[in-house]
Amino acid sequence: MDKLARRFDGPPGQEDMPYLLTPGPLTTSRSVKAAMLADWGSRDVEFRRVVAEIRKGLLDLAGCDETYECVIMQGSGTFAIEAALGSFCPATGRKTLVVANGAYGDRAAAILAKIGRPHAKIDKGDSAAPTVAEVIAAIEADPEISHVWVIHCETTSGIVNPIADIARAVKQRGKTCMVDAMSSFGALPLDMKDGIDVMVSSSNKCIEGVPGFSYVLVKHDMLAASKGHSHSVVLDLFEQWKGLEANGQFRFTPPTHALVAFHQAMREHAEEGGVAARGRRYARNAQVLIKGMREMGFSTLLSDNEAGPIIQTFLTPRDPHFHFERFYEDLRLRGFAIYPGKLTRRPSFRIGTIGKVDEKVMAGVLAAIREVLAEMNVTDLSPLEA
Amino acid sequence: MDKLARRFDGPPGQEDMPYLLTPGPLTTSRSVKAAMLADWGSRDVEFRRVVAEIRKGLLDLAGCDETYECVIMQGSGTFAIEAALGSFCPATGRKTLVVANGAYGDRAAAILAKIGRPHAKIDKGDSAAPTVAEVIAAIEADPEISHVWVIHCETTSGIVNPIADIARAVKQRGKTCMVDAMSSFGALPLDMKDGIDVMVSSSNKCIEGVPGFSYVLVKHDMLAASKGHSHSVVLDLFEQWKGLEANGQFRFTPPTHALVAFHQAMREHAEEGGVAARGRRYARNAQVLIKGMREMGFSTLLSDNEAGPIIQTFLTPRDPHFHFERFYEDLRLRGFAIYPGKLTRRPSFRIGTIGKVDEKVMAGVLAAIREVLAEMNVTDLSPLEA
Repeated sequence: MDKLARRFDGPPGQEDMPYLLTPGPLTTSRSVKAAMLADWGSRDVEFRRVVAEIRKGLLDLAGCDETYECVIMQGSGTFAIEAALGSFCPATGRKTLVVANGAYGDRAAAILAKIGRPHAKIDKGDSAAPTVAEVIAAIEADPEISHVWVIHCETTSGIVNPIADIARAVKQRGKTCMVDAMSSFGALPLDMKDGIDVMVSSSNKCIEGVPGFSYVLVKHDMLAASKGHSHSVVLDLFEQWKGLEANGQFRFTPPTHALVAFHQAMREHAEEGGVAARGRRYARNAQVLIKGMREMGFSTLLSDNEAGPIIQTFLTPRDPHFHFERFYEDLRLRGFAIYPGKLTRRPSFRIGTIGKVDEKVMAGVLAAIREVLAEMNVTDLSPLEA
Repeated sequence: MDKLARRFDGPPGQEDMPYLLTPGPLTTSRSVKAAMLADWGSRDVEFRRVVAEIRKGLLDLAGCDETYECVIMQGSGTFAIEAALGSFCPATGRKTLVVANGAYGDRAAAILAKIGRPHAKIDKGDSAAPTVAEVIAAIEADPEISHVWVIHCETTSGIVNPIADIARAVKQRGKTCMVDAMSSFGALPLDMKDGIDVMVSSSNKCIEGVPGFSYVLVKHDMLAASKGHSHSVVLDLFEQWKGLEANGQFRFTPPTHALVAFHQAMREHAEEGGVAARGRRYARNAQVLIKGMREMGFSTLLSDNEAGPIIQTFLTPRDPHFHFERFYEDLRLRGFAIYPGKLTRRPSFRIGTIGKVDEKVMAGVLAAIREVLAEMNVTDLSPLEA
């Protein structure tokens, strides 16, 4: 079959574009993108209302009471991560414990190192979840630790960490709990009242908006106390918050189109049934995908109770005919953009199960994978050794 | 006439939205926004080509030869400003001279202060251009000055500074010349070969894209020498460049939709006739607006040879019936979003003359202003004293 002709299998309204089976940017609904067909004035009352509703809606989604605030930050998710680390992590005397089990934990530690904030690290490699006991032991071993940074779903592998249990344990010991919920928020349950002081996520993940901004939910008192603490002007969450509170406007030009699209995405998230329904759809995507891949002979990195519904890691087959670059391109020409692996040792690739996609799309990518493997003459799908 | 009915006078395709007569976000063409109706994979070959063409196109527009590089930065223009200041301004021993004549010069100095980079400042207030002689005198008075930061069009007033003459003088003295061309680039001529080492602008200005990113043009050798110098991970231009050069991909999720829209905006910029034609349209907008406003009795802050074609500052009338908030809202309900003033002493307001607007739109806002003044019973348009 002609590959280019097959490209016209894409999402409704953009038939010549592939489905994005990645951790983001994602495939979004036509109506989310259509919201960007107008130019909104960033200081106008209607736009300020959109921003206020987004901030309020995010707080509600995370189970926040009135002791929390929401601050929106321009840029990708990592911008909000650096903003939160720079605004809230202590500079001297005390220390931030980074609970790392993949590239995103490593990145948080690298940011702390760059901006000169003392930190310790639990390093679980890239395919094992940290336990509550390990976090408690690390806290108890170093009395300087005052803040703990932990990741909800580590996109490196797709593993879901026991965030609620860790948050409660951290809180019981009087420490500040900061959560990177970048790739999970909106699809996996997260309740800030479990003891989470700070949560960071971005526009182009499970709420299914387009990329352009990120956001931080944070305890009011902690935010209020952070004045002057940031290492940066643009990443200063206190000043960003003060600007939004003063007149509902951003200090610096906001990505108006991405914000209006996100407002629509939040409406569609609620219409689908909120976090529970979104999580169910993604879980069904993951089930269909993993079952089909295993039937073909692929192996997953994680067991079913470790893997979340966000992104799935498959081990690279040992068959010498398998070449990831060709596999990727041939799938993309059939309408499915998958994702390279990020494990440090085991060769792997990833397929995202989030975005405006359902089990029919998963069936589609499975069929495409079967075709491409046949064309590549790949038969031995048992994994390469580590 | 019913105000709400009058809202249906907006730009083609978004008739219920006002024209944005501001320094940005601006009114953009329908086709620029329509480019956002697809979800692009940030790692796919087509998207990498879009990014490469944008980077090449921006270098060409600024008259760069192969000794310059283009680095795109997520976030608003101020993100690129802080990135450039943090990546290139010396931390010890030497000093950056900020040539300030308005809020944006002040902001650059504030960023340098925040990130601990020594600086001196020429402060011209907010409505006078710096002269070449003043810049030379400041450089010669302080041998520690190694870098000069100057603004092309200061949006605070709309004044255009003699950037080419200043750049040549700075260069002749062996100093590094850094230019904030945020609100001018793409409409006012700028040739990096005049001695400009660094230039910063953003997506939602005279190229007429949507907000979401900014960019830095910089001498290759200066960028290559900046490794490790930034105060930030996300704002580190060296690392951002290395990522883009390594595989054409961004280190951190790019605003894909805003980039694809900008690619379309650059095509439309070229089709219109490039910088010269874009500048002529804006100059005509400014002429029509200023002439009409003066005929009504308004006074401009600047003389005609000081004011650029980007944004016009009008002095607030002394008539006690004039209230800016009502003036603003009543104009907006007629389809025209103007802009508040930013002068520190004289009450004023601003009307932008950039974006996908032409002299017919200017005639429209003039007619709307006449109507609103009549409804407000404003007759004395002579300016309030300073």
